[in-house]
Amino acid sequence: MRYHSVMSTILSDGVWTRVDGDHDPFQAIDPATGERIDPGYPVCSWTDLDRLAVAGSRAAGHPANQDPTRIAGFLEDYADRLDARREAIAAMAHRETGLPLEPRLRVVEFDRMLGQLRQAAAAARDVGPDSWRSPIRDEATGIHADRGPLGGPVLTIGPNNFPLAFHAVSGGDFASAIAAGNPVIAKGHPLHPGTGAMLAECAAGALVDSGLHPATVQFFHHCRPEDGLRLIAHPAVAAVGFTGSRNAGLALKAAADAAGKPSFLEMSSVNPVFALPGAVSAGAEEIGAAWAGSILMGAGQFCTKPGIMIAIGDGSEPLLEAAVSACESAPPGILFSAEGVATLQSGLREMTDAGAEVRCGGSAAGPGSRFEATVLAVDSNRFADRFEVLASERFGPVGLFVAASGMDEAIAIAGRLEGQLTVTMYTGDGDDDAWDRLAPVLRSRCGRLLENKMPTGVAVVPSMVHGGPYPATGHPGFTAVGMPTSVARFSMARCWDGVAAGHLPSWLR
Amino acid sequence: MRYHSVMSTILSDGVWTRVDGDHDPFQAIDPATGERIDPGYPVCSWTDLDRLAVAGSRAAGHPANQDPTRIAGFLEDYADRLDARREAIAAMAHRETGLPLEPRLRVVEFDRMLGQLRQAAAAARDVGPDSWRSPIRDEATGIHADRGPLGGPVLTIGPNNFPLAFHAVSGGDFASAIAAGNPVIAKGHPLHPGTGAMLAECAAGALVDSGLHPATVQFFHHCRPEDGLRLIAHPAVAAVGFTGSRNAGLALKAAADAAGKPSFLEMSSVNPVFALPGAVSAGAEEIGAAWAGSILMGAGQFCTKPGIMIAIGDGSEPLLEAAVSACESAPPGILFSAEGVATLQSGLREMTDAGAEVRCGGSAAGPGSRFEATVLAVDSNRFADRFEVLASERFGPVGLFVAASGMDEAIAIAGRLEGQLTVTMYTGDGDDDAWDRLAPVLRSRCGRLLENKMPTGVAVVPSMVHGGPYPATGHPGFTAVGMPTSVARFSMARCWDGVAAGHLPSWLR
Repeated sequence: MRYHSVMSTILSDGVWTRVDGDHDPFQAIDPATGERIDPGYPVCSWTDLDRLAVAGSRAAGHPANQDPTRIAGFLEDYADRLDARREAIAAMAHRETGLPLEPRLRVVEFDRMLGQLRQAAAAARDVGPDSWRSPIRDEATGIHADRGPLGGPVLTIGPNNFPLAFHAVSGGDFASAIAAGNPVIAKGHPLHPGTGAMLAECAAGALVDSGLHPATVQFFHHCRPEDGLRLIAHPAVAAVGFTGSRNAGLALKAAADAAGKPSFLEMSSVNPVFALPGAVSAGAEEIGAAWAGSILMGAGQFCTKPGIMIAIGDGSEPLLEAAVSACESAPPGILFSAEGVATLQSGLREMTDAGAEVRCGGSAAGPGSRFEATVLAVDSNRFADRFEVLASERFGPVGLFVAASGMDEAIAIAGRLEGQLTVTMYTGDGDDDAWDRLAPVLRSRCGRLLENKMPTGVAVVPSMVHGGPYPATGHPGFTAVGMPTSVARFSMARCWDGVAAGHLPSWLR
Repeated sequence: MRYHSVMSTILSDGVWTRVDGDHDPFQAIDPATGERIDPGYPVCSWTDLDRLAVAGSRAAGHPANQDPTRIAGFLEDYADRLDARREAIAAMAHRETGLPLEPRLRVVEFDRMLGQLRQAAAAARDVGPDSWRSPIRDEATGIHADRGPLGGPVLTIGPNNFPLAFHAVSGGDFASAIAAGNPVIAKGHPLHPGTGAMLAECAAGALVDSGLHPATVQFFHHCRPEDGLRLIAHPAVAAVGFTGSRNAGLALKAAADAAGKPSFLEMSSVNPVFALPGAVSAGAEEIGAAWAGSILMGAGQFCTKPGIMIAIGDGSEPLLEAAVSACESAPPGILFSAEGVATLQSGLREMTDAGAEVRCGGSAAGPGSRFEATVLAVDSNRFADRFEVLASERFGPVGLFVAASGMDEAIAIAGRLEGQLTVTMYTGDGDDDAWDRLAPVLRSRCGRLLENKMPTGVAVVPSMVHGGPYPATGHPGFTAVGMPTSVARFSMARCWDGVAAGHLPSWLR
């Protein structure tokens, strides 16, 4: 293995620093071609990570980092600097992820990233009664309350599928944790290190001018998994924010739980869609086409991909046919990695072994990490028999169609669902009773309940909940998207009892 | 072992039911005399607990349990029924716990219990923008949000030290979980089973008239610890609320974490007090007397007992002397059990082995579970050397005095503190700089920061935070006291995306 160059630096306490130790560097691979991308990037040692934690702890206690105006100014300046490098960053993200440049990365996801940073700036600046700080003054008792930072750096870890808007150093968890007054230690994603480096460079530039402590934002590319788990348990680290796979998320959760650290984890979801009998009668083909469109977005690598369609009652065959037809005419999707292709192939094998039938697609389709758009179908009895296998998340352009004979079957399926980010119901004329029977079962099993629209779009508005019960996330009380509630996650509840006015934060005086 | 009678029933799905299996019953003991109290009470089997979980799950899905008016009506009727039995319940609690009847149990704690239930009723009824439901309507996107029940019963487990206001079937966790629309499975405390039975009888009576599902409130006395942990992991159980010891809390937390269940745990706190140099100069004796008074409340068995006094600077000897003098003239306190006496005695032995010196008290003093009011002192070097032993919580009328030579030493101590429910600073003239140095270190280490008052009083007001970082609790974002935020704990974040008006809860239409 040869590298043309190695940029062996991480952003540590305000300085781009060579990593300690001698782990081999790693490289990204262009998923559209399978070719390695120069340069290589460094893998940290525990010594590096320990330094980040200690420096982050100093930043947490630094007086300048208690100043809402400085924090907001940093976030806004950072967004401006990113915008100024939009073309180069989007091009790098496109090359490293295979996601479409236009409009997805350069416009939609880029603007979402900037919008989140600017919303977070507004949230940081807001000290009003409806802000994430939730200030309460009680003159009668002299007992006041607010929410404040956690007292240490937050470790953020982003996913493979949103290299900008969910990136550990520029995404929603980052923006939320910073807005709440916490330093951040951001771990880049090994599949898009060049994107992470460019984002972190912009953050570092904004930090210099911000007046905040230099360790307010620190960044490293990669580490051994065991060192990452150890970092969570580091006494200086306050919390962890994560979006990614269930396996990685559960390992992080166990480490955080054992150390008594709050963790905010978005892990997995199959996002079932129930087409109620009236909806099936009236619009099977439109629903099938919409489902296929939703499955194909981002090559099916959305956390909100509707992986299962449960069509209730007679006449659902046209729904399946419309989805198959749309997927047959779609080009193969580019997955993020060859490992993703292998995982998807073995997942499909498990599904067909369990009795699901491939109706279109089903195979890898090079060059690079391409995979055919795939629809499977299974009858409801077999689905019930092999529920654990068939109702598992499959990351890629794949959907499973289940024909349910009636509402009793649908309700039985609903009652077995794990916690989900989203559940969708399509309704038509005469479906009110069906809604009333199914909705109570589904409501507590998902963070977002949708009617007559596909779940793949996640609007960044205060009313969004991008969360849900375990194992979709680690806790049903929180949302990763939608400010100011996503900011409040990374804060603690504080009471000031009998404290003199001069010793209170300004918003409680 | 003989029992005069055995009331072998638990409240299961609306019916007082004999327990399954053949575990030996248990009895309370009068801690003032050491005598057994009749009758005996039953220990559940797993079969009993499984039935409670399944019935509770049905209650969670019952349409009547979604009605805020019914929930509020139940809570208010329950409070009225308790009030009508005030004398008998308070007398039973007095006999089982040894806590003073007047005014503590019959007036103060009883009124607090009733007040919490009525505040919870008001919270249940409130569907406004500032309520725990946090409704958000977004007309532009059609994406609305609120908070709602968790979808299954909440297991509540109360402590030994507040047999009314923190009781699993009548206390703050109970009231909060019910107000948020959840059924509750309440586990009684083995040290005050008669009190629990009387409380649960009132709840059962109110439930009959409420129109809520009969399994909305279920109650059992006791179970084997391993069955309790298994109940937390039961698929039907949504969450657990707990107040008690650190050992029990950590075992519950591990079970809840492994099963992906939210847990709200109040576990332990030493509640350090820092007397700053100006305060020591001006008012050493008053602070010492106030400290002793706070240590003696409830025989030192408060979760907010200020277990350690760190007096900074010269002239702190009169503070220690005043505390010793007050404790020497106080009668021995009644601990809840002989086990509590034994645990305290061995804890004091650990402290003296580590170099602390007993300045008064230090011994058990029968009859019953009495223990002398005890003050220990240690120099700051030895305190630093044996920090883990000397800074541990000791449940009972015991306080440790530490003389710190100056602010650097005090800040070093502060930096080593575990998460606390409360930290207190006493300030006087010229202490502003000292505050500014110490407060940032202490603020993120406690839920409630006090100035110039002792922490034992916990006002039930919206600005209260009875919470704090691990291991004081399991999560720094929550409070067990103070509505509506304590209610919101037991809810999930919900989004309604594109959902037709007729399918929305009334407060979102």
